[in-house]
Amino acid sequence: MIKTDSLNKNLLDAEYAVRGPIVIRAQRLEEQGKKIIYCNIGNPQALKQKPLTYIRQMLCLLEYPELMNRPDTLKLFPKDIVDQAKTFMQRNPSGTGAYTQSAGIPFVRQAVADFINKRDGIPANRDSIILTDGASKGVQSAILALLKGPDDGYMIPIPQYPLYSATIKLYGGKQIGYYIDETGRWQLNESILVKSISQARSDGVRPVAIAVINPGNPTGAVLSYDNIRMIIEFAGKNGLSIFADEVYQENVYDPGVKFYSFAKVMDDMKETAVPLFSFHSVSKGFLGECGHRGGYTELRNMPQDVMAQLIKLQSISLCANVAGQVTTYLMVSPPQPGDESYELYRRERDGILGELKDKAAILGSEINKIPGMYLENPQGAMYAFVRFELPDDPGKDADKMSAEERMRYEAERDSAYCMSLLEETGICVVPGSGFGQLPGTLHFRTTFLPPKDEMEDFVLKLREFHTGYTAKLKDSYR
Amino acid sequence: MIKTDSLNKNLLDAEYAVRGPIVIRAQRLEEQGKKIIYCNIGNPQALKQKPLTYIRQMLCLLEYPELMNRPDTLKLFPKDIVDQAKTFMQRNPSGTGAYTQSAGIPFVRQAVADFINKRDGIPANRDSIILTDGASKGVQSAILALLKGPDDGYMIPIPQYPLYSATIKLYGGKQIGYYIDETGRWQLNESILVKSISQARSDGVRPVAIAVINPGNPTGAVLSYDNIRMIIEFAGKNGLSIFADEVYQENVYDPGVKFYSFAKVMDDMKETAVPLFSFHSVSKGFLGECGHRGGYTELRNMPQDVMAQLIKLQSISLCANVAGQVTTYLMVSPPQPGDESYELYRRERDGILGELKDKAAILGSEINKIPGMYLENPQGAMYAFVRFELPDDPGKDADKMSAEERMRYEAERDSAYCMSLLEETGICVVPGSGFGQLPGTLHFRTTFLPPKDEMEDFVLKLREFHTGYTAKLKDSYR
Repeated sequence: MIKTDSLNKNLLDAEYAVRGPIVIRAQRLEEQGKKIIYCNIGNPQALKQKPLTYIRQMLCLLEYPELMNRPDTLKLFPKDIVDQAKTFMQRNPSGTGAYTQSAGIPFVRQAVADFINKRDGIPANRDSIILTDGASKGVQSAILALLKGPDDGYMIPIPQYPLYSATIKLYGGKQIGYYIDETGRWQLNESILVKSISQARSDGVRPVAIAVINPGNPTGAVLSYDNIRMIIEFAGKNGLSIFADEVYQENVYDPGVKFYSFAKVMDDMKETAVPLFSFHSVSKGFLGECGHRGGYTELRNMPQDVMAQLIKLQSISLCANVAGQVTTYLMVSPPQPGDESYELYRRERDGILGELKDKAAILGSEINKIPGMYLENPQGAMYAFVRFELPDDPGKDADKMSAEERMRYEAERDSAYCMSLLEETGICVVPGSGFGQLPGTLHFRTTFLPPKDEMEDFVLKLREFHTGYTAKLKDSYR
Repeated sequence: MIKTDSLNKNLLDAEYAVRGPIVIRAQRLEEQGKKIIYCNIGNPQALKQKPLTYIRQMLCLLEYPELMNRPDTLKLFPKDIVDQAKTFMQRNPSGTGAYTQSAGIPFVRQAVADFINKRDGIPANRDSIILTDGASKGVQSAILALLKGPDDGYMIPIPQYPLYSATIKLYGGKQIGYYIDETGRWQLNESILVKSISQARSDGVRPVAIAVINPGNPTGAVLSYDNIRMIIEFAGKNGLSIFADEVYQENVYDPGVKFYSFAKVMDDMKETAVPLFSFHSVSKGFLGECGHRGGYTELRNMPQDVMAQLIKLQSISLCANVAGQVTTYLMVSPPQPGDESYELYRRERDGILGELKDKAAILGSEINKIPGMYLENPQGAMYAFVRFELPDDPGKDADKMSAEERMRYEAERDSAYCMSLLEETGICVVPGSGFGQLPGTLHFRTTFLPPKDEMEDFVLKLREFHTGYTAKLKDSYR
C-alpha cells in the first residue's frame, strides 16, 4: 500500500494556505448547514458578483454556433455580439472544440499585443505572448523553466501569494523572501532587497528571478513608478529575471495612485537586457471569471530560441483551454463606444469597480476603529492584510526563540485565531503566516468581495469576535 | 540577456514530437497557402468532426444562464436540456464563473463515480476522483507526486505517447522503456517487462510506476483481459503504481475485442494494494472536445492522507477549468432513452464512431497494399502506427552502431521521410522515433481523423510518395 512517505517530499512540504485546513474546515461546517462567508480567496462570482453580459453572450454563441444562424437569436442578443461571434468562428473555424496552437490562437495573441500597446503606448508582439490556463499556470511554467538546480533561488515578497512559495517548493528550488514595508505602504525597499540577496548568496543560493505582485496580494498596495524603476535596476544589476504578477491591474481604487506595468517602465528606461515575464488573468479585474482559467504571459527581452523553449513547455500540456482563451480575447477587446452592447458593458464594469472601491473604503475605515487592529487602506486588488494584536503570553518569550521557533509559534497563534473566527462567526479568512509576515506581527488576509451589506456585517462580527477572543486569551494567561 | 543555457536543462532535453519541428513547418507552409492535412494529433474537431449537440447546448445555457428564463429559449433548445441546465445552476449557483473545490464540483465527481460504477459494475467513490484540465494534467500530476528523487523510474511503453517521456524528463525522473510487441497485436509481454525492470534496477534506477495506454496510442491496440491481469500482478510483485491511460475507452472498433478498465480487472482480482491512477478525458471518444480541456483521474488503493496530498497538488493551480468540468459531467451523464435530446445524441454518437471505424478499416486494408508498408489493423483509439521500409544505405551498417548512434540514425531517417511527405503532399504525420520504436524498424503515426474522402486521398498520396521516395533514395545510394 502506498503511504505519504512514498510521495515526493517537495509535495509533502508545500503549503497552500488559501486552500488549507481552515478552508477545508469551512467546507465541512457548510455541509453541516452553517452559513460561511468565504473571504479566503479572490473568487468574486462565488460571492454573487455577476459576470459581464457581453462575455457570457459571446461564450454562449461560440459554444453553440448554430444559434448564430437562427432568426430568433437577434431577439436575444445584441447585433454587435452576434457579428463578433461570427467573425470569431470565421477566423477560428474549430471554435472552442479543438486544440489550438500551443501558445494559443494567433489572432487572440495579436489582440493581447494590441491591448498592451494601447495600455502602455509601447510596441508589443504577438509572438511573445503565451495564452495560459489562468496566471497560475504561467507563473508555474516560468518557475520551472528557469530552474537549473536545487540551489536556484527566487526572490518573493513577504507577505506573498502562496502560489509562489508552494510552486518553488514543489519544483525543488529555493525561496528568497524579501520583506515589504507595511509602514511604507507596502512598497519594495532597495536596502532590504540588497540584504536579502546577499544573505541568499552567502547561503549558497543562486538567485535567478524576482517576483513582484502589483497591485499587491495580500497587501492591496500599488507600487509607484519609481519603486518599479528601482526594482528593474536591481534586477539588472543582479542578473535576475522579473516575474511581474499584474493580475490586479484593473483593481486600483485610490485616486492618488496609478498602475504602471513593468513593461511600460522598462520601455521608458530602454532596458533591453532584463528578461520580463508578465502575467495577467481573466479571474480578477472586473471580470472575475476565475472558473474559466484564462490568462496570458507576455515575455520581453527574450531571444527567439528561449521563446521556443517556453512554447515547447506549454505544448507538453497541448494548449490552454479555449473557452479561457476566448475570455482572454474578450477581456482585451471589450465593446467600444457606439457598439450596441457598450452601454451595458460600461454600466456593469463601473458598477463592479465602484462597489469594490466602496468596500475597500469600508474595510479601511472600520477596521482601524477596532482596538488592536490596523490596516493600510487597500489601494487596489481585492484584499486587505489586516494586522492584529493579541495579548502576550507571559509563559513565552518570543524574543528568545530561534527564528524558526518564533515563526512556528506565531503561525500557531494566527491560525488558532482564524480557526476560532470561523467557528464562531462563519467568516473564513487566511492566517498571515500563510503569506509570511514580519516576526512579531500577526495578520490575516481577507478579501473585500462579499456584498456590501455582508461586508458591514463582517466588520461588526469581527469587532465583537476580536474583543471576546483577546479577553478570553488574557484570562487564560492569569 | 537570457540564453537557452540559462534554462532548466530538463526542459531543453524534453521532446514532444506531436508538436515538434514537422508540425511547426506545417504551420509555416499553411501560412504560405499550402493545404495541410493535419494527421499529427488527435484533434477531431480541427478535422471537421462536429461537436455533440447536447454538450454544446448545455454549455451555451450554462455560459449565459439568463437565456434559461426567456420564453423564446424553448423554441431553440429541447426541454430536457433546459431542465438539466437549470438543475446544474441550482446545484452550483456560481456556474462556470467561480473557482470550484480543488478536486472539482462535488456532484460532478459523484456523476463520474456513478459512471464508473455503471461501466464496470464496481463500487466507486466521489472522494477518489479529481477533475483535471484534460488527462495530460492528471498524468503530469501523478508523475510529479511520485517523484522522490532523480533515480526514480517510470516504466513506459515503447512506442509511447510522448507526454510521458517529456514529463518524466521535465520533472527530472528516469524513463524505463519496455517494448510492446508489434507482431503480437501490441500487447505487453511479461518477459520483456521483467527484463526491462531488472535492467533498470541494475542501472541504479528505482522503479515507482508503470504507465499503460489502453486502447493504445500510437498503436491503436486494445489490451486483453489476461494481459491487464498480468500487468497488475507484475505491478504488485514489483511495488509499482499503475498509470492507466484510458482516454480511448470509447474508441474500440474491432468487434472481436473489448475494453476492460484496470479498475474492473483489479476489482475482479480483489487486488487492494496496487495504487491505481486511471485517466480519462473529454478530448477523445466520440466527443472530441479537446479545446475544453476536461478530464478526471480516479484513484484506487490510495489512503486518505495520500489522497489529501494529491488534492493539495491540484489546489496549487486552484482547480480545473469549469467549462471543462461541465463537459466531463456531460460525458459521464449523457441523455437517456426517453429524453427529448436522446435520439439526436444517439445518432450523432453512432455516426462519429461508425465513421471512425470505417476509416480505421480503410487504413488497415489500404496501407498493407503499399509495397514496403505494414500495419496492424487498428482495433481502437484514433491512430495507426505504420511501419515502413527504406532501402539500406550501403555506406552505413546500423548493426555496427552503438544503441544510441543507431537510434539517432533511425530518427534522422524517419524524420527526413515525414518532412518530405509534408513538403510534397501536405500530409503531416509524426515520425516513429517521436514515440520510440524497436531498433531496425521505422514508423510514422497518423490519425485516421480526416473526413473519409480525404482519408482515401491520403492513402493514394502516401502510396505515390512512398514509391517515389524509396526510388530516389535507392538512386542516391548508387
